[in-house]
Amino acid sequence: MDGTVRPLSAPGRLAEPQEAISIEELQLAARNHGMPLEALRYDLTPLGLHYLLTHYDMPALDPATWRLSVGGRVSRPITLDLDAVRARPGTTVRVTMECAGNGRAHLLPRPVSQPWLVEAVGTAEWTGTPLGPLLAEAGIDPDAVEVVFTGADHGIERGVEQDYQRSLPLAEALRPDVILAYEMNGVPLPVQHGAPLRLVVPGWYGMTHVKWLREITVVDRPFDGFQQAVAYRLRQSPDEPGEPVTRIEPRALLIPPGHPDFMTRARFARAGRITVEGRAWSGWGPVTRVEVSSDGGESWSEAELGAETSPTAWRGWRWAWDATAPGRYELCARATDATGRTQPLTQPWNRGGFANNLVHRVPVTVVG
Amino acid sequence: MDGTVRPLSAPGRLAEPQEAISIEELQLAARNHGMPLEALRYDLTPLGLHYLLTHYDMPALDPATWRLSVGGRVSRPITLDLDAVRARPGTTVRVTMECAGNGRAHLLPRPVSQPWLVEAVGTAEWTGTPLGPLLAEAGIDPDAVEVVFTGADHGIERGVEQDYQRSLPLAEALRPDVILAYEMNGVPLPVQHGAPLRLVVPGWYGMTHVKWLREITVVDRPFDGFQQAVAYRLRQSPDEPGEPVTRIEPRALLIPPGHPDFMTRARFARAGRITVEGRAWSGWGPVTRVEVSSDGGESWSEAELGAETSPTAWRGWRWAWDATAPGRYELCARATDATGRTQPLTQPWNRGGFANNLVHRVPVTVVG
Repeated sequence: MDGTVRPLSAPGRLAEPQEAISIEELQLAARNHGMPLEALRYDLTPLGLHYLLTHYDMPALDPATWRLSVGGRVSRPITLDLDAVRARPGTTVRVTMECAGNGRAHLLPRPVSQPWLVEAVGTAEWTGTPLGPLLAEAGIDPDAVEVVFTGADHGIERGVEQDYQRSLPLAEALRPDVILAYEMNGVPLPVQHGAPLRLVVPGWYGMTHVKWLREITVVDRPFDGFQQAVAYRLRQSPDEPGEPVTRIEPRALLIPPGHPDFMTRARFARAGRITVEGRAWSGWGPVTRVEVSSDGGESWSEAELGAETSPTAWRGWRWAWDATAPGRYELCARATDATGRTQPLTQPWNRGGFANNLVHRVPVTVVG
Repeated sequence: MDGTVRPLSAPGRLAEPQEAISIEELQLAARNHGMPLEALRYDLTPLGLHYLLTHYDMPALDPATWRLSVGGRVSRPITLDLDAVRARPGTTVRVTMECAGNGRAHLLPRPVSQPWLVEAVGTAEWTGTPLGPLLAEAGIDPDAVEVVFTGADHGIERGVEQDYQRSLPLAEALRPDVILAYEMNGVPLPVQHGAPLRLVVPGWYGMTHVKWLREITVVDRPFDGFQQAVAYRLRQSPDEPGEPVTRIEPRALLIPPGHPDFMTRARFARAGRITVEGRAWSGWGPVTRVEVSSDGGESWSEAELGAETSPTAWRGWRWAWDATAPGRYELCARATDATGRTQPLTQPWNRGGFANNLVHRVPVTVVG
């Protein structure tokens, strides 16, 4: 992209200490929506309520002329139309997906980007064909190290014009639950979720699941594209290379009890026994524990875990809260997974605002 | 609601001149999403892309136990379950629906509420049963003047605890295209759009189309509930009664051409002939004219109108833009309807930020 366009697209930055949400951040919030927290009541997020982040515009792809090409460091490049993809062996995976930037707007200082609060999550059943056998048919060269996925979505980001592209290490790409999905919750993939085909990589943050997929390229060195080497890195200062963002950190969210005020979303609930419920997930291992607090994290109680419905989806939990005394409370929930990872009570900060799984706090006023 | 809760819920207010978007406005923007403007390419908005505003929480209604009651000033009150509603004569209406607060976040001073930019719109096919025959069966009393619709959604707003309620004048309620809808775009009504049943009143702003409908009450005097008498009024000062918000003012929106920058959504496009396309609608009458400008409103050209697909839905339009010279441009579109109503170039302001149909402006950088 030439110098005429570059001024349209500025480098990443942090908000000043008192800087409020800008109209540009609001524009992104109006397009890219979270999952309303009361939808945590659904094991499977209904269509239209799953969180959504579109980097550029949703492209309009004609399924009749769309093609997927598989090439690069392979011995037999393949091109498939949608019927050919659908004719391959199919499988369905239930996956909790979360945006790597979830929670960003609560960080101090705030990285200026999509201003997520805590709702950038959803669970869907994705139906598609496993990627591994397709790569095997193409014949992976012995020197292959990564697989690059290219979407049809196009724009500029931080001065770089690009098609959206992300890579996976070869071993991850060959996992049996990594699929190319053409259905979501049993219906054809909606345009906003990447129709006609998207990548699904259970356990990884959302930026991995390339939408509007058009090209799969096996490469013999680590991919250095923008979304891999510049964005989606964990950095404390802008000049360090940073660690890549990969799997989802554990998080529990709760359904705010009672009823809201329209403008503030502040909650009020009638005094009595209140069942506090929510969901918890981790991309690193099964959730093994959820703790709940009604005093802002001073003391914690064990929540009862629901059945696991899929190793790669969230798990329900509940806790009986004896909220007999009117007053103001602060509910918190904290998930721990089988690897021992848990949620911090102070913000895990990096310049991109990624993988921030700070404990969720929900103030509630109990009334008589 | 007693005094314990009242402080949770403050009166409406205007933002201070330099006051940026608050975290509370952002919370609403994260829940209540617009329709991404590239989705203007669809005559019928795909599920999940239609705009959405939920005043409180989406209630969880069990269709098996849900009932609709029809009562008040009628001679034969009726209670129906969902099967009984579906067994009644059915019809489908194609409707463009817009939030009355669309465009609010651009107003100066800004009314503090849901901070819509311009995307709070969508077009759907709603299938349901006409309301008029149901009211006729119930036997409308001669002294009836309005019909009140009560949803199952519950919360506080500006200090008033309430179920969401809106009324219609009797003559509007009896219009043959006013329906009780149980399907949207051919599938069962999604929870976020009011499952199992919502009111649909073609041509009126979104607040009219009561979701999660549970009660219909014929009344013999104008309804003075919060959403009728306090909210959704056009007022210049807080102490005047104001005119009610009713039908949708004309508006045209355009699909931003070219490609965006991720963070700013600024557009760039290659020099050449660019087809500028969009949709236009009005709740007062058919759209008869759309004009387009590429110089920020200095000069205007006639757009070509597409076929009308429904008297109550938007109409496509297009205009060939000879964008041969690189540089910065500002595209605008302006709709006029058969009643002569058109879009203003200066903001139509009121304290609620309602019915603001200021001309839409899209800056575009044309590159060589």
